[in-house]
Amino acid sequence: MNTVDEPRLREIVGENNIKSDPSDLYVYGSDSSVHHAMPWVIVKPDTTEQVQKLMAYANENKIPVIPRGGGSGMCGQTVPVKGGIILDMKGMNRILEINMPDVYCRVQPGVVDDDLNLALKQYGVFYPPTPASSRIATIGGEIANNASGVRSVKYGATRDAVLGMKVVLPNGELVSLGAHTRVEASGYQLHKLMVGSEGTLGVVVEATLSFVPIPEYRCMGVANFDSLKDAGEAIGSIMASGAIPSMLELVDSVAIKAVNKTMDLGLKEVAASLIFEADGQVKEAVDYEINKMKKICEKHHGQDIWASYDPKERAKIFMGRKKLFPALSKYDDKLASTSLADDMAVPYSKMAEMAGKIHEVAEKNDIIMTAYGHCGSGCMHTKILMDTKREDQWQSARAAITEIYDYVRSVNGTTSAEHGIGLSKAESFKVEKADSINLLGTIKSALDPNNILNPGKLMQAPDNWVTASNLRYSVNS
Amino acid sequence: MNTVDEPRLREIVGENNIKSDPSDLYVYGSDSSVHHAMPWVIVKPDTTEQVQKLMAYANENKIPVIPRGGGSGMCGQTVPVKGGIILDMKGMNRILEINMPDVYCRVQPGVVDDDLNLALKQYGVFYPPTPASSRIATIGGEIANNASGVRSVKYGATRDAVLGMKVVLPNGELVSLGAHTRVEASGYQLHKLMVGSEGTLGVVVEATLSFVPIPEYRCMGVANFDSLKDAGEAIGSIMASGAIPSMLELVDSVAIKAVNKTMDLGLKEVAASLIFEADGQVKEAVDYEINKMKKICEKHHGQDIWASYDPKERAKIFMGRKKLFPALSKYDDKLASTSLADDMAVPYSKMAEMAGKIHEVAEKNDIIMTAYGHCGSGCMHTKILMDTKREDQWQSARAAITEIYDYVRSVNGTTSAEHGIGLSKAESFKVEKADSINLLGTIKSALDPNNILNPGKLMQAPDNWVTASNLRYSVNS
Repeated sequence: MNTVDEPRLREIVGENNIKSDPSDLYVYGSDSSVHHAMPWVIVKPDTTEQVQKLMAYANENKIPVIPRGGGSGMCGQTVPVKGGIILDMKGMNRILEINMPDVYCRVQPGVVDDDLNLALKQYGVFYPPTPASSRIATIGGEIANNASGVRSVKYGATRDAVLGMKVVLPNGELVSLGAHTRVEASGYQLHKLMVGSEGTLGVVVEATLSFVPIPEYRCMGVANFDSLKDAGEAIGSIMASGAIPSMLELVDSVAIKAVNKTMDLGLKEVAASLIFEADGQVKEAVDYEINKMKKICEKHHGQDIWASYDPKERAKIFMGRKKLFPALSKYDDKLASTSLADDMAVPYSKMAEMAGKIHEVAEKNDIIMTAYGHCGSGCMHTKILMDTKREDQWQSARAAITEIYDYVRSVNGTTSAEHGIGLSKAESFKVEKADSINLLGTIKSALDPNNILNPGKLMQAPDNWVTASNLRYSVNS
Repeated sequence: MNTVDEPRLREIVGENNIKSDPSDLYVYGSDSSVHHAMPWVIVKPDTTEQVQKLMAYANENKIPVIPRGGGSGMCGQTVPVKGGIILDMKGMNRILEINMPDVYCRVQPGVVDDDLNLALKQYGVFYPPTPASSRIATIGGEIANNASGVRSVKYGATRDAVLGMKVVLPNGELVSLGAHTRVEASGYQLHKLMVGSEGTLGVVVEATLSFVPIPEYRCMGVANFDSLKDAGEAIGSIMASGAIPSMLELVDSVAIKAVNKTMDLGLKEVAASLIFEADGQVKEAVDYEINKMKKICEKHHGQDIWASYDPKERAKIFMGRKKLFPALSKYDDKLASTSLADDMAVPYSKMAEMAGKIHEVAEKNDIIMTAYGHCGSGCMHTKILMDTKREDQWQSARAAITEIYDYVRSVNGTTSAEHGIGLSKAESFKVEKADSINLLGTIKSALDPNNILNPGKLMQAPDNWVTASNLRYSVNS
């Protein structure tokens, strides 16, 4: 029930920072997931003080508040399933400080990842967690989801790069967490708790981030494999060898075919390709890593192995991987590419088995699924191509991902590697974290006793997203 | 008031795992800090189940429990200021798994850091957070304090190396936190909250840790400076240059004199020395880093600059730094080397100013203080040499560290870099974290409603450790 006092909101953030037109509400009702729900109002604050006042108001009146960045979340993190206020943080998008001698920068949460990296580039450094959605993803959203991407194998995820932050708590209090230094041992590391909390514990209004030098040399290589098993063994051997790839990507046969079908790239249609990269300030060291990885690929029956420092050739190698996302969207006019079970992580030794499992499950359930991902970090992506109008396809998709997640947990994997839990993955998440689910709830209740911050997500989300949430597709029943 | 039911404890952990002899209690009443307090009983569990039963018993009866590892804590973390049970975790000291293909190991909390590294060495890898106390420090204690050491500049602190853990909560419940993979985005990262919580939120009974390859090449260099300011500027320039040292240590004039006085090493008595190291699998890359750092030192008027790959020469370079700790203990029979304000962190650009501040404050207060530390991580160590029998020296020490911490906070530094807060540093910690102190308390109460886990520490610790705690020295009044 919409109980928002809009005049009060206008007082807090000003006339122009409020939207309640139905078309706006509709747009803000979905992110990049399959879910949809209507918010009551959109509020776009300019300042920390406005966020504080807004939270105090919402807390007093028990109104849900859903902080939102670029809207690129893949599993419904910002879909307002309980209604309430969408807190659009994109207005707070200033880079506050780039401090080279002290090796940190301070940014507002609405700064877009690519914009930050553009600003850092002139100093010869970069912010490494960068997910594939970096053109639209904001730093705040990346913190909320502990985002990472192709280079996490070497440079880590968001949680590794966040030194500290300012956070507005549900009651409107502003707190500073973490520090401005490389190491810190001053009690509870609460900034690390905020990373990955999906907007359920506080609203990040400023972040202090570390950065690293842009490498002078990058070399990328590729190897094709006639069997997924060989590719998987190559991954395990590379990681166990102590090699330090700056990227290690798997692309499976379904993905290669999808790219060929839609893009006419003429990629060789093998069982799997591995794309590997090394970077650094010294060419000999990059050569060393690349040669090590090439040799391991050879040993595991890799073919057509080559590598290059040349930016154009690197782009050619990466083209298939880069075009995969749009290729899957264009695969078949009748089929949509949906993000469900899209980023599980498994131990390195299980990557090939995991890819095989995805193929097996897809076939059994009459849907098309690809296996690809950042194997160097244990992250396996998949998309489900299906006819979203057919209700039976949704049931098939649900059966498929249930089986996949059962497998992931059985091999000590985890539900999400880098996209978060939101709504879509809550069912597996709750099984995976069964023994700590009470603890998670205890922490949530302690910090947000009125349950106003992004309610209905994570441990509070319903199990069956097919029936329990509104899908953003129209489904024929 | 001791209300422990010893026969019940014997039932839980067995006859031989309990100590309550006054001499044992006395020994377990202190760690490596200046504080002392008598526990009621020492319990040394062998199994997770015993820890669970013990916690359930203690929680029901509201008895304080203080988890303890090697007893190398520098600020009173394991001193039982509220009495209770010391939970000696050194009995749970098995390395459970070293998984090379999946690049993690699982250990019990009582495993000593050096023992873990000895076991990892045969696989060509190491666990990097390693503090100087690695001969006695346990993995559990290191997790409790987010420990780190000389190589944190390149390899990070404990929080960066912990992938997951099993924890017994105050109510006896066992929970699994984190994952077994390089990246994870499955909700609240509670294992990161446990790191640095100083035994106040849960008892770690198992940890999943990452490791990294042992580098093929290590090169260490040294540069002397006639002014602290020059040395400090060299530090800032090195870090801003994008160099990747595997160690960057500052040693000040007081420290050099102390080593010469007690060890007869004949070190050149300059204002400051910088010791720098680079490591890697490829010599050219190590050369590159070393040459970069040498040139920056030269630019900032560094003298006597040299570097070597030879293990003996490296040992010679590091000798002064390595012997500093014992040298300070032997400095003067009348003076004890105490750990107070011993590990603050400040931004790189403030390292030299910080060292100067330490000298100034020491002189003003008639005590001897050194400045040294892991500048590459922003960590500045100091010891206070004083006559512990004289009460006025304790008051001077307190005045000195109060002034030092005021400075640290004024330049965006933090109270502890790697030793934790415990009792000694609570006063500055509470000022530094003033805006989040309620939040810390909220989390503590949520997880430990009866306040049985290591009570009286961190935000609960008294401000003035000189008068509020028993010192382990006899002081003439």
